[in-house]
Amino acid sequence: MPARLRLFRLHFDPPPRGDTVPASDTSSHPTLTSAPETVSAVTLARRPSGVPQVDDFELRTLDREPLAPGRVRVRVRDLSLDPYLISLLGEGHMGDSALPLGAVVPGRAVAEVVEVAGSIALAVGDLVVAETGWRSEAVLDAAAVTPVEAPEDLPASAALGVLGMPGLTAYAAHVRHLRPKVGDTVVVSAATGGVGSLAGALARLAGARTVAVVGSREKARVAVEEVGYDEAVVRTEDDWVEQLRAACPARVDGYLHMADQATLDGVLEQLAIGARVSLVGVIDQTLGAPPTRLRAGAVMGARATVHGMVVYDHHDLAAEHRTRVAALLRAGQVTLREHRFEGLEQAARAFHTLMTGANVGKVVVGVS
Amino acid sequence: MPARLRLFRLHFDPPPRGDTVPASDTSSHPTLTSAPETVSAVTLARRPSGVPQVDDFELRTLDREPLAPGRVRVRVRDLSLDPYLISLLGEGHMGDSALPLGAVVPGRAVAEVVEVAGSIALAVGDLVVAETGWRSEAVLDAAAVTPVEAPEDLPASAALGVLGMPGLTAYAAHVRHLRPKVGDTVVVSAATGGVGSLAGALARLAGARTVAVVGSREKARVAVEEVGYDEAVVRTEDDWVEQLRAACPARVDGYLHMADQATLDGVLEQLAIGARVSLVGVIDQTLGAPPTRLRAGAVMGARATVHGMVVYDHHDLAAEHRTRVAALLRAGQVTLREHRFEGLEQAARAFHTLMTGANVGKVVVGVS
Repeated sequence: MPARLRLFRLHFDPPPRGDTVPASDTSSHPTLTSAPETVSAVTLARRPSGVPQVDDFELRTLDREPLAPGRVRVRVRDLSLDPYLISLLGEGHMGDSALPLGAVVPGRAVAEVVEVAGSIALAVGDLVVAETGWRSEAVLDAAAVTPVEAPEDLPASAALGVLGMPGLTAYAAHVRHLRPKVGDTVVVSAATGGVGSLAGALARLAGARTVAVVGSREKARVAVEEVGYDEAVVRTEDDWVEQLRAACPARVDGYLHMADQATLDGVLEQLAIGARVSLVGVIDQTLGAPPTRLRAGAVMGARATVHGMVVYDHHDLAAEHRTRVAALLRAGQVTLREHRFEGLEQAARAFHTLMTGANVGKVVVGVS
Repeated sequence: MPARLRLFRLHFDPPPRGDTVPASDTSSHPTLTSAPETVSAVTLARRPSGVPQVDDFELRTLDREPLAPGRVRVRVRDLSLDPYLISLLGEGHMGDSALPLGAVVPGRAVAEVVEVAGSIALAVGDLVVAETGWRSEAVLDAAAVTPVEAPEDLPASAALGVLGMPGLTAYAAHVRHLRPKVGDTVVVSAATGGVGSLAGALARLAGARTVAVVGSREKARVAVEEVGYDEAVVRTEDDWVEQLRAACPARVDGYLHMADQATLDGVLEQLAIGARVSLVGVIDQTLGAPPTRLRAGAVMGARATVHGMVVYDHHDLAAEHRTRVAALLRAGQVTLREHRFEGLEQAARAFHTLMTGANVGKVVVGVS
């Protein structure tokens, strides 16, 4: 790994005794070590109401699946947790149906091939990205796993973050929606997360003034000092709209939205003429929140263009995205920022952290 | 005028005795004939609350303004009434301040130059388009009037409609926002009005299936039989969403919005993947209505692109628009559809008609 590669990994420390984080008691989730013939997995125990709690999930031991020709057994190394999952736990996502109670929670991971059956192009020891779900081991169709495309000099877990789907989301929003020019002002919400931190870096490298919208003072510090935003605005503070106005004296030319209604309302009022808005995520995907809506008058007044973003539409950019961002990682201009939790039994807590916005960077659970 | 030019002019007939149209009593607005030294004008008597009423306006006789060098006196022929005016009467439009009580109501007109002062490029008898306001005669800076650019074989009033601002609005929304391809489905609201009828015709000529959203059965008939839409949906009927779904079996690729919240909500739910929405007007510009908002989930689910449209940004298209639409008018592929009222004393009633959506086509008041 070159010396200039900046890798921040924030490891999870268990809360001290007496800590009041809700439903964070891990004693009900004893750490299991997979016996050779069993697999650890986390299932949906209860449909979350509001912010998902640790108790909504259950760590279970399942029998190992037999291997059939054309399939591979993989051992999960790094499990990615992503916000879209919340809608699967409730009413379904993008037309998918909701996850049944008792089912293994879906998720994408970097995994190592440990057994292959039949004549396939993969070998034991290969690292792949696959939809393994929250489990220690998975059996999958060989066609459903993809060799890790992160360059070998970079950590494989980058394939889940800045070089994976969140990174492609940021890259596509940048090149297809926000398209900042030198001197533009680009505002990014969820600015220190997996998508936001890359979007901010790309806008800065394009010559834009970049402004982070974050949920805490600590994240504001990280946004400016570590990610490199010009300014950061704390959306939970009473005067945040004034902070935003002060941070964007020439108004807002590009806005990447992954936040709540109040944030959207506040930023839309500050749009410059001809502004571009990329709707990447909305907090109403949290169960129970009213649907996010955009004021049409603000869009018309700014003659803005609003793009609904779904990363699946932008896979044609994947190779360009990986090449360019890997080069930026090596040059130290983009940081691989991970908020790591160790052990599958920490996945539920990690998801709670993600969905309360307490993470700084891409949330990854180290499984084996 | 070539034989194939289709010109529909719906003339206003006074309501029969006993008619219950609100505030439509014209007896309080006696018809005045300008004496040589005076000018008829309509002023704002009362700030409208909700739909503007005839009594919100007052027909007055003003002294003739003297002519100074570099200025022209014009006699108003055809006065254009446009929906954006409503916001001037209330809280102001696009940053303009509200119209003071007692001021002459603003408006664009085709007018004839009757007197010039100083050395200017205009001659008596020239037809011009100018912001005359609602008056029989106006004195204006020569620089503020534009020679009528409608070809001589077409009625000059076309410069207020299909060849003027409403036409340019439709043209720009078509070429810059909706961009229909052969086989696309394009939905147009306010579909028989000045903007909508041209937008529908342009989409049809581009090979799209066109669906009108209108406010009455009669307009649905006009939309299909006269304007040429493939289907029409009556948004005031209980089952209108089912009508829309039936009319758009392949969902909606392009939508031109100039209607209310319920119409926007209904159409957004039917968007096809990659749909384009042009926000041309919103009914919340009617005083007192809550602001129109777009559901972000519908925009994201369809990966739609929503454009805020203001015609002033698209003047670079004006020459192309006039050339192309004039040719379509001559070929009979686009219809010059005017809903005419005769006499300045009918302007308030004409505006009430426009703002209740009872017009079919561009609303024009013949002044002299």
